[in-house]
This record gives sequence, structure tokens and C-alpha cells, in this order.
Amino acid sequence: MKNLATKIPEEPPLRFRGARVLITGGAGFIGSTLAIRLVQHGAHVTILDSLIPEYGGNLFNLQPVSEQVRLHITDVRNQHGLQHLLRDQDFLFNLAGQTSHMDSMTDPQTDLEINCRAQLSLLEVCRAVNNRVRLVYASTRQIYGKPDRLPVDETHPLRPVDVNGINKLAGEFYHLLYSDVYGIPATVLRLTNTYGPRMRIRDARQTFVGVWIRRLLEGQPFDVWGGQQLRDFTWVEDCVDALLLAAVHPETPGKCLNLGGCQPVSLLQLAELLVQCHGSGSFVVREFPADRKKIDIGDFYSDDSAFRRLTGWQPATSLASGLEMTVAYFRKHLQFYV
Amino acid sequence: MKNLATKIPEEPPLRFRGARVLITGGAGFIGSTLAIRLVQHGAHVTILDSLIPEYGGNLFNLQPVSEQVRLHITDVRNQHGLQHLLRDQDFLFNLAGQTSHMDSMTDPQTDLEINCRAQLSLLEVCRAVNNRVRLVYASTRQIYGKPDRLPVDETHPLRPVDVNGINKLAGEFYHLLYSDVYGIPATVLRLTNTYGPRMRIRDARQTFVGVWIRRLLEGQPFDVWGGQQLRDFTWVEDCVDALLLAAVHPETPGKCLNLGGCQPVSLLQLAELLVQCHGSGSFVVREFPADRKKIDIGDFYSDDSAFRRLTGWQPATSLASGLEMTVAYFRKHLQFYV
Repeated sequence: MKNLATKIPEEPPLRFRGARVLITGGAGFIGSTLAIRLVQHGAHVTILDSLIPEYGGNLFNLQPVSEQVRLHITDVRNQHGLQHLLRDQDFLFNLAGQTSHMDSMTDPQTDLEINCRAQLSLLEVCRAVNNRVRLVYASTRQIYGKPDRLPVDETHPLRPVDVNGINKLAGEFYHLLYSDVYGIPATVLRLTNTYGPRMRIRDARQTFVGVWIRRLLEGQPFDVWGGQQLRDFTWVEDCVDALLLAAVHPETPGKCLNLGGCQPVSLLQLAELLVQCHGSGSFVVREFPADRKKIDIGDFYSDDSAFRRLTGWQPATSLASGLEMTVAYFRKHLQFYV
Repeated sequence: MKNLATKIPEEPPLRFRGARVLITGGAGFIGSTLAIRLVQHGAHVTILDSLIPEYGGNLFNLQPVSEQVRLHITDVRNQHGLQHLLRDQDFLFNLAGQTSHMDSMTDPQTDLEINCRAQLSLLEVCRAVNNRVRLVYASTRQIYGKPDRLPVDETHPLRPVDVNGINKLAGEFYHLLYSDVYGIPATVLRLTNTYGPRMRIRDARQTFVGVWIRRLLEGQPFDVWGGQQLRDFTWVEDCVDALLLAAVHPETPGKCLNLGGCQPVSLLQLAELLVQCHGSGSFVVREFPADRKKIDIGDFYSDDSAFRRLTGWQPATSLASGLEMTVAYFRKHLQFYV
């Protein structure tokens, strides 16, 4: 009997062999992990990344495939460049985005630029030069806001609690609209906390886990705000599996699907697990600061059964082993990430 | 016994006597009608309008109060001007918007500019210089998309079917967010088809009813696309009642409420009623054109019981009398609207 978890990652490779793939935000955490995988599958990978310092782009992320991918350091807002780059692509993984909730509140217009204007530009270019490109857009659980019920499935009301969530929601809707009206086969995946090698650990702009790891490796105690909140986490390679499956499955276009991961854990449990992985370290539990409380969402974990049912996806790596591999990666490469 | 319908419009006047009120889009259809009413109530009215030809602004709309209002022909995107104008206002009716569904599909970036970027600018200015201003934002039923059920209440899923609907939805969310996080008392009213004197009749950019009236008055048959679709209509003075009530009611801030109107009628019934009001005229029933079908929403009418319960609002004018007054107005002033 074939094991499901083994079967899944074997399917997409055939589809990607020789395929032309564009990844926006491809020097970032998830984008670079995806690029490396696609290169292994024999795809021709082109990467767009703005390398804006506050975002996730980091050239070191691409080091294992630096000779095999074409990298364009440019902004997704540059519509003319996009026309040229998009024309012949078979797949487009649209991962470029401003991800910081706090930054979206202090500088809402930049968040709008990246998460709305640039998305519209990209879709307009697809419409103009390549409306058959298979497009996967990385959205976020942030669009749901504070959950009414758990786990949160796709029918849950949409009530984003920060500018970033609002703009990402608009970005989703643009993709679904262009799929519906212009036939561009676009799929939206709503990601939760993704973690793993290559994540941003300089600060908490991608997820708080990053900055925890950095403090840990630097021998400093890290701060746990609150601690009781439940969260779910996706191992980055599992996330890449999901992106590839979403891109090749014939029934995902026009759909908006949650991607979850492991069983939810509390932040305290996560902190303890992380210290355990590292072998030493400590953390301090703190009261939520007032300015963050307003945009905090309490407990959150996703119901991703629709995506699992449709594609057969399931996470292959436990949180404990994922964290172990993450800590090991950053222990080795810390200098490139701080 | 006091009649509800008479009682309602009497409440707000006291609150607006001597109040400073800013209206964005104040030379437009609803904005100018609101401005005229506020002047009658003794408010100090300042109007912002870009007078962009494709939008609803028309200086003739303000002719009855041209000596009593201060008009600034400027764009809501002009953030520096806004700081000065917003500082001392008691009320802000935020009605400026790009309203054409078709234009939002051919020029999505301009729709984004007006319905997202400008709204964020306005809210940022409120936050900076006047976070106590009582704000009412005019949204649209378009954010619901094609209804799952009728009538559509506020719990209905949000599934906009054009760029305009997506951007208006983001605009709503910004207002609710700034209300929640920064305490700016903002209320969102989701309008349906509003009609009456001063509406745009040059074309169908505000609502198809406008262009029907124009054709009728010019002695031409007008086109009815489909005909069986049900719609609800709000008489503009009833809409103004609702805007004023929303602005003074203590429990509306932070809320998002539907505003409906009369009982729903089919487009055919409406067309017949309109011909009857005019005394003559004809129309041609046509198949929906392919490019519009994609963004058509079928039957739609609002459940506005939440707003009625909260504020006591109810429409005071029947569709038949409203249409009669509308036709009479445009018969007299046609030259200023074509």
C-alpha cells in the first residue's frame, strides 16, 4: 500500500520538469524554499524580488541554486518589466508582499502599494500578455481577524483587524475576480504561521518565531507576549508541497483555501519546545503591550480540510522535527540573517 | 400619536444647527442633496469635490446653496489640503468615490486611487488632526456580489464581483479599523440604488436609472438589459435622512449597516413606472451583453432592518412619487445634466 504522505510530493515534479516558473518574492523565506525545490524538479525558475530591507528577501536564501535561477531585483510595481518577464511563464507563484501587521498600521500607504496596487498591476499584466499562466497567490489567515469559532474554515466571516489584513483581502479578491472574469487560473492559499530555514529572524516582521530563534541563538532570553494563545504552524517544506499541489490540481483555480499544519499549540508550549530543540535557553512571559492588543486576534487555528480533501495534501513533518531543523539551519548560518 | 415618518427627519436638525460639516463628493448627487438639507438645518457646510468629469460632481447641483457653502475643488487624495480642512469639523460625510463598475474594470488603478488610497489618506488625516470627527462613509451593496439569499442582510458573505466592489469593501474595512483602533467614530452605510433630482443622468456611471431618464426626456427609447432582475431603490431625501441619523445616533459608530428603501421591483416594472411618470416614452428589452454578464449580480434587495431598528428610520416617499419628482426636476433642468 502506498503511503499518502510519500505519494504527494511525487506528483508535481513531473509537471514542473522543464516548466517556466516565475516567483515573486522569490528571495524570501517561502519563495526561496520553493525555488530550490523547483530547481530540483527541473523547472526553469525566474525570481523577482525587491530586496526591500524590511521584507523577507535575502540573497543568501538562494545560495544553493544561485547558478540555476534567473534573479531580477525589481519591484512588482514595475509594470513594464513584468510584461516582459510574464509573457512566457507556465506558472506564477505570487508570494511578494508586505507582511508586517505593525508596519501596515504605521505606514498604511506602503502596505497598500505592495499588497493592492502591485497585485492589480501583476494581474493586469497577466490579462494583457499571459492569461493562461497558472497562478498561486499566498494570502494570510489575518483576513479572518479575531475568530468567532475554532478551527476557522473558509466560510468564517472576514473581519481583518489591521491594514495589512484588509489589503491582503483585497489582493485575494482581485485574484479571484481575474480568475472569474478573465479566466486566469488563479488559486488563493491562506497561509497561517509558516516556519523553517530561511525565515526572517532579524525581527518579528514575518512571525514572532523568527525573533525567538534569533534571541535563542544569541544566548538571550526571548519574550513571549501572552502565552496562552493557540496557533498552528506550517513547516515550510509542507507549505511548498501545498503550493505545488495548488498549482497543478485542476480543481483549485478560482478557489480560496486555507492551509494549516500541525495540531495547534499554545505559545508557551512552542517556546518550551524551541528551548528544548536548542538544548538550552530561556524566555520571559510578558503582558501584551497596549498598542498590539488592539490588533491581536487571540486563539487561531485553521481548518484546512477542504484543501486536504481536494489535493490529498497533509503535513509530513512534526513541529518538533521542524523546529529542530530550523534551529540547526540558523545555528549554521546565523551571520546571514541578523 | 406622533407619526414615525414625520418624527424622524425632525431629530437631527437640532444637532446640526451651527455644526461644522465637511462633505467629500459634496457636489455630487447625494452629497449636494445632503448639503442643501444641512444648510436648511443651519450647519456650516464645507464641500470637497474633485469635479472629475466621469464622477458625479456638478456645480449646478449646489446652485440653491451656492452662497451658503464653502466649496473646495480638490481631490481627496490631496492630503495636505485635507489637514487644514478637517481640523475643526464636527461631522464628516465621506461620499467621494468612483462609482462605475465598468470603469473599475477598464481602469482598476484609478478606482484603487480613489476608493482605497484616498480613503486611507482621509482616515490618516482624521487620526492626525481630528479623531473625534463624527464620520459617515457611503459604501455600496456591490460588496456582497451575487446574493446567496434574499433579502441580503449584513451577515451575508462578502464576495464583490468587480474591482469597484473590492475597493469599496477595503474602504469600509479601513473605516471600521480606524474606528476600532483609533476611536474615530465612523459609521458605514451600505447604499443600494439611490435615485432622485441631481443624480448623474449623462450615462450609466451612477445607476442605469439616470440614463433611462435622460433618454426618456430626450424622446428616445431606453434600453432595459434583462428586465426580470429585482432591485430596491432609495429616494435621495430618504437617504439623506439616513445619513443624518447615522451621524447623530450614539450606537452607530463602528457599525456597518445596510440601507434599503422601497419594496423591490423588477427592472421592467421600474421602466413601466418611469414611462408612466413621464406621461409618454418607450423602452426596448435587450439581452444582457456578454461583457457585463460576468459582473452582473442577478436579483438584489437589502435587508435594512438593523438600521431601521436602531435609528427608527423608514422611507417616507414611495417609488412612484419619487420618480415623478425626479422626472419633473430633470424636465426643468435637463440642460445642466447632459
